[in-house]
Amino acid sequence: MKHLILLRHGQSEWNLSNRFTGWTDVELSDKGREEARRAGELILEAGIEPRYCFTSYLKRAIHTLNIALSAMDREWLPVVKDWHLNERHYGALQGLNKAETAEKYGDEQVHIWRRSYDVAPPSLTADDERFPGKEAKYAMLSADELPLTESLKTTIERVRPCWEELIVPALQLYDNVLVAAHGNSLRALVMMLLKMTPEEIVGEEIPTGSPRLITLNDRLEVEGDSYLGL
Amino acid sequence: MKHLILLRHGQSEWNLSNRFTGWTDVELSDKGREEARRAGELILEAGIEPRYCFTSYLKRAIHTLNIALSAMDREWLPVVKDWHLNERHYGALQGLNKAETAEKYGDEQVHIWRRSYDVAPPSLTADDERFPGKEAKYAMLSADELPLTESLKTTIERVRPCWEELIVPALQLYDNVLVAAHGNSLRALVMMLLKMTPEEIVGEEIPTGSPRLITLNDRLEVEGDSYLGL
Repeated sequence: MKHLILLRHGQSEWNLSNRFTGWTDVELSDKGREEARRAGELILEAGIEPRYCFTSYLKRAIHTLNIALSAMDREWLPVVKDWHLNERHYGALQGLNKAETAEKYGDEQVHIWRRSYDVAPPSLTADDERFPGKEAKYAMLSADELPLTESLKTTIERVRPCWEELIVPALQLYDNVLVAAHGNSLRALVMMLLKMTPEEIVGEEIPTGSPRLITLNDRLEVEGDSYLGL
Repeated sequence: MKHLILLRHGQSEWNLSNRFTGWTDVELSDKGREEARRAGELILEAGIEPRYCFTSYLKRAIHTLNIALSAMDREWLPVVKDWHLNERHYGALQGLNKAETAEKYGDEQVHIWRRSYDVAPPSLTADDERFPGKEAKYAMLSADELPLTESLKTTIERVRPCWEELIVPALQLYDNVLVAAHGNSLRALVMMLLKMTPEEIVGEEIPTGSPRLITLNDRLEVEGDSYLGL
């Protein structure tokens, strides 16, 4: 049996200030760091020893992984960082207060942006200071890869190469793999693994700080799916 | 021009208690964390942007790198951890107080263990609880690779494959490479780069927390060698 552990980062500073975050590179809050530490303890208590780790380019996921590995005394494990595991890009909504956005556009519109499968929020323009093409960390991305906004559908499409080209080979080699990432990039992995429909994945909520333990057979078919500590 | 930045970890908890450390996986002290943060600021101020990073399997080097990258806002950079970059293994002296060891064996003998090129401290035995073969993190090493003790000479010999197979290819691809490691594994890199003799390398001291900036031409020949912040 192989194990894939999915860990959603804990509370960030912008969760506290109720703003759309997306690719904005905000820090974890104290509560988020505590969630990460507890997640590491839960993995340790479950006796599952990861051999290989993945995370995104965003520090709330990187720090969650570092803190969890520290709690497990396994900071020496290999870690691959991949921008494909970033949170869904929230377009021109990034940085806006969620309550103010609901007042401006209406609750129903905001609900559609947040909960539909294939509707993306309004796009950034490439001259916007929030455009990822302005950041050194995305300098190696092609124009096609740099998002101006993303729906859940386009997020899942860009997570797919990371799954197929990096995580699947790691699972084949190492058995136990840990992925510390974001609500929507982890949803992408869950949708592919559990062969869910768009209707099913929009209803799927992945809680923060609770490691999701997916048990796989040698053909990487799901044999078990549960949360540690829930 | 290419740049290799060598960063020796800052003060650890066992520097404070004056014990032989070697492969013992001790934490940085508060001063050590501050040295790491300052090192990141110095690299940032020098305008050298690393593209690829290496560190050892020991948390005092891993944390030094993490803290320096955080100070540079470059935590998304790729980091390869390699046990070949570990500190010299100090054999049966690991964990002993340096002053007590000098009382027991004499100052001259301790000086020979610490400062000679090819004399190793007394060996561990494989049933010693300090033997690296007992740790999960070294489970993939062969019996030949697991040290019972090391001289500076044998340390340099085991660092060599990391230089040839990992760091050189990274320098060829990425130009600016950062290595956060230990006094003796960094000496190994300096000896190979500067083609130093055994007599020269035993007299070479690499200070903690001061990034050493080695400038290389396209054939990886050294064109410059200086410390940032000294």
